[in-house]
Amino acid sequence: MDYDFRMAQVVQTLRKIGANRVLIQLPNGLKKYYSYVAENLRKIGIQSYLSLSHSWGPCDLALKEAASTKCDTLLHVGHHSRIHVWRTPNLNIVFSPAFFKKNPRKVVEEAISILKERKMFKVGVFTTVQHITFLSECVHTLEENGFKIYVRGAPFLARGQLLGCNLHHVRTLKDKVDAFLVISGGLFHPIGVFFASEKPVIQVDPYRNLARDVTDAGSRILKIRLYYLLKALDAKSFGVIVSTKPGQRRLTMAEHISRILGNHGYNTSILVCDEVDLETLENVPWIDAFVITACPRIALDFQENFKRPLLNPGEVKYVLSGSVESYDPFDSLNMLPSISSLQNVKRRET
Amino acid sequence: MDYDFRMAQVVQTLRKIGANRVLIQLPNGLKKYYSYVAENLRKIGIQSYLSLSHSWGPCDLALKEAASTKCDTLLHVGHHSRIHVWRTPNLNIVFSPAFFKKNPRKVVEEAISILKERKMFKVGVFTTVQHITFLSECVHTLEENGFKIYVRGAPFLARGQLLGCNLHHVRTLKDKVDAFLVISGGLFHPIGVFFASEKPVIQVDPYRNLARDVTDAGSRILKIRLYYLLKALDAKSFGVIVSTKPGQRRLTMAEHISRILGNHGYNTSILVCDEVDLETLENVPWIDAFVITACPRIALDFQENFKRPLLNPGEVKYVLSGSVESYDPFDSLNMLPSISSLQNVKRRET
Repeated sequence: MDYDFRMAQVVQTLRKIGANRVLIQLPNGLKKYYSYVAENLRKIGIQSYLSLSHSWGPCDLALKEAASTKCDTLLHVGHHSRIHVWRTPNLNIVFSPAFFKKNPRKVVEEAISILKERKMFKVGVFTTVQHITFLSECVHTLEENGFKIYVRGAPFLARGQLLGCNLHHVRTLKDKVDAFLVISGGLFHPIGVFFASEKPVIQVDPYRNLARDVTDAGSRILKIRLYYLLKALDAKSFGVIVSTKPGQRRLTMAEHISRILGNHGYNTSILVCDEVDLETLENVPWIDAFVITACPRIALDFQENFKRPLLNPGEVKYVLSGSVESYDPFDSLNMLPSISSLQNVKRRET
Repeated sequence: MDYDFRMAQVVQTLRKIGANRVLIQLPNGLKKYYSYVAENLRKIGIQSYLSLSHSWGPCDLALKEAASTKCDTLLHVGHHSRIHVWRTPNLNIVFSPAFFKKNPRKVVEEAISILKERKMFKVGVFTTVQHITFLSECVHTLEENGFKIYVRGAPFLARGQLLGCNLHHVRTLKDKVDAFLVISGGLFHPIGVFFASEKPVIQVDPYRNLARDVTDAGSRILKIRLYYLLKALDAKSFGVIVSTKPGQRRLTMAEHISRILGNHGYNTSILVCDEVDLETLENVPWIDAFVITACPRIALDFQENFKRPLLNPGEVKYVLSGSVESYDPFDSLNMLPSISSLQNVKRRET
């Protein structure tokens, strides 16, 4: 078992709130541990059900699946650093962690070599919730090696915790640090840090046991973004997408963007779905470009899979102004641009 | 415009019920007509939204999407032969048709040649709702050519109308006819008729302008089914899938099947999702075989795409008995086998 699910505490919590029927939500990579979790629940007489859907984050609670299986409790695993109960009228939601057990100590030493070689001594350190238990040790090691370390917290997050969509706390360190060190698997989170800061990002990957500079990968995605944003300037019809996911439902923002684009002479449609994927968008061929008000990471990380431009709300102003010259990568993560910032955009003379 | 959406009547109905915000649901192949439908609604001051999700049938109402966009009305297009309003506490649901305009007259003549050549003069005639406007003419032509024609209705369906999942009315003609004539595009509906009847099926395809015998295609799918059913006899762990779709939610059946399989020593899990697709099932690698209580056509038509066996509720008895010798293809369409029929199955001596 590679993960610590804090199962004793989870079981105690479920017992305390009187859970009987529990829908278990696990991210795809952790679904293979369902039997282990279910078995622990079965021992105290709890019947469990597994959500087969994606579980992208706390924005993606399987409320409909919980209702369809008449569950009294939703156990949402892997997106929280501590066990936490959220009581709603018909459903108790229990957030519980999944900590990767392997200490990335050795990989941190490799990262230190890279940082020293590049003379980057002011470093912001962040990690995803799976590795948060090793953050203090990592920071300590870096400080012992003479680095000046910055770790920031954010509301509802543990100190130093990264979320895919909310990177404001990373952004605030932009001008203070030479580089960021990110402990995580995959490129998803390091890319987010790059877009929030435009600083070099060194990744410590505890799964693949390697440290690497992912700045070039970030730059590449930035170039792809600019290419598609330029394409979006020629679009005539826009599809503004609203998600039904509880924490990604931005109807007001979608209607607002649709209205502003409409006022600027664009043909707009508001499109509704749960997951945004390629097959889904292929059924609306008359749309030239999309604005996704669901999750900013769809447009950022998966743009290449879709042939037509995907924009995020913070990027609509470039369409309205007709120029991407002043492009700020952080706009790709801005899901709630102020209404006035969109209303007051002036179209560049051409 | 290849389809008649009866738009004047739809608009009149929407006005009558006081619709203001309407979520439009179109099957994927018809989503390209959204702008036309939306424009007609806009003219009478109705704001519309498009559901991007699949719209498989009246079992698949986009209630969550309607709620997420705060719509007062759901316009569900293409699965009904007449305009019909269903009032629910927070949402009015308007079912409206989409009739394919092209008369398949000439193709019916080709089908007549095939039937005559094969000396099949007692014929059951069915069609999907898109072509129902041509059914009478087709029946008339067949009768003029000396055929004895059988057309059956079913509750909630027009006379001679086919649905993907409910083929009991086709089944009742099994012993009366030599063959079936099915007016429809694609293989989906003719295959259903073959599984319900095990009779030759001649298809009249109004889209591709051709008549053909699809019995061999049906036999091929039947062989695939038997191969996977045999594989399922060796399964040790079963995943019983429940869908969240309003008309496909068979929780009681799923729990019942899970319990019976459990009593027979199988390891079972109840899995919940909206759409059942390959990617979704790849995340639960420990499951040897699935029972799908959602839509019977997933297991029937898409078995080859999935590597592990997909069973329908009516096929569970073959697992319990340990034999597929007495296999009846109609069981692949039986979503509600009686509880006693499952409880009383005796395992074959091996």
